[in-house]
Amino acid sequence: MKVVVIGAGNVATHLAKAIYAANVQVTQVWSYHNQNAQTLANQINAKAIANLNEIDLDADVCLISIKDDAIADIANQLKDFRGLIAHTSGAVNLEVFANHFENYGVFYPLQTFSKSKDISFADIPLCLEANNESSLTRLKELAGKLSKNIVEINSEKRKMLHLAAVFACNFTNHLYELADEILKANQLEFDILRPLIVETAAKVQNAFPLDVQTGPAIRNDEQTLIKHQELLLQQPQLLEIYKILSDSIKKTI
Amino acid sequence: MKVVVIGAGNVATHLAKAIYAANVQVTQVWSYHNQNAQTLANQINAKAIANLNEIDLDADVCLISIKDDAIADIANQLKDFRGLIAHTSGAVNLEVFANHFENYGVFYPLQTFSKSKDISFADIPLCLEANNESSLTRLKELAGKLSKNIVEINSEKRKMLHLAAVFACNFTNHLYELADEILKANQLEFDILRPLIVETAAKVQNAFPLDVQTGPAIRNDEQTLIKHQELLLQQPQLLEIYKILSDSIKKTI
Repeated sequence: MKVVVIGAGNVATHLAKAIYAANVQVTQVWSYHNQNAQTLANQINAKAIANLNEIDLDADVCLISIKDDAIADIANQLKDFRGLIAHTSGAVNLEVFANHFENYGVFYPLQTFSKSKDISFADIPLCLEANNESSLTRLKELAGKLSKNIVEINSEKRKMLHLAAVFACNFTNHLYELADEILKANQLEFDILRPLIVETAAKVQNAFPLDVQTGPAIRNDEQTLIKHQELLLQQPQLLEIYKILSDSIKKTI
Repeated sequence: MKVVVIGAGNVATHLAKAIYAANVQVTQVWSYHNQNAQTLANQINAKAIANLNEIDLDADVCLISIKDDAIADIANQLKDFRGLIAHTSGAVNLEVFANHFENYGVFYPLQTFSKSKDISFADIPLCLEANNESSLTRLKELAGKLSKNIVEINSEKRKMLHLAAVFACNFTNHLYELADEILKANQLEFDILRPLIVETAAKVQNAFPLDVQTGPAIRNDEQTLIKHQELLLQQPQLLEIYKILSDSIKKTI
């Protein structure tokens, strides 16, 4: 199987490296920034192409891993491609490829990727969708080489899954950041919170979050809630977030 | 060293069991609910006492691990105690013990505890404060048997640390719960998010959250932000949380 990768950002890089590590050939990499394409291509023994019209029209799979808003435009430029074309986005509909292609799909790895941190694909849910059975079979073949966690999911549900992931990951990481702001303002190190953060995530691996919620809001500990809000009087945005999340927790009691 | 534990909730239970496992004798357990005291006492070869006036006045350490609002009242009832008295709260000032006792302190384990999940104390930050050097030495001696992560911190900073921990743990777990609500409403299983949750916590173990933030808000991906908000139109509280956290992330760019 020959794969072409369009994009060289976080997701494209981790995915392309995982495909390469699974002994599947990535032949070409394209990016808006040729230097990024070159950097990625060098790591996986591929060729960086500077123009989309250099794409190997006979490659088996073209994975588009770029920002959501640009997928339709890039697909339009690739309409001579004859293989299976798929994007890796959580939010973009499968039908972005309709009319242009015979075989198309979605290959959405549900994970957070950072350039600085390597990650094993073995447990990452790979969320697949395709326009026909043969496309789905091919996506499953590729996915199966990377992960044992393969999920078929349609565009409607994938959108909701992506939204849920924003709450569970992006917002969560931002709460870590807000905690770090509070610590910094008090000459405390983020180090001290790291075991707590790991355990908070570990607890919901074998339980549901509703069943392991702790803290003053779930205990309805009004005195502590009021004291905390007093500590945030000079930071209206943190205070607002404190209030809305505490109120939301109380509604689950 | 002989320790008396006042309380039999999540923190008291995990702490008492860890002390017992470290070969320190817990002689007595008291709780508002004698049955809970009995359950804990049975696990650690201690005696459950039904009345505070049965407390061993000669024990070396009395650890008060009950809800914040009740600490002052319980301390008042223990004023004949001659050993070192300490509470385990993040939010209550050391001075709650002043005037009543000669030796007192704080022994605050910075972690989230659930009855259903065992936990190793080895890495848990034990945050200590005491009214004099000999009290601090004794607290350090006890803490050193449980963890290698011992932090001296005064009441003012501990309050801020506790507040930061609410953001990093209680609110974070609630975001997991909101994600689960979104999944459930779309017939999706929480299982699919679990690898993402673990990785989100793992990423900040060797990095700062600001440096590994991902998602539509940090990318300023307006189309996805708008689409997500449309998906939440029927859930005003989730929509409000989505907006306020996305706006807060954007301010970090």
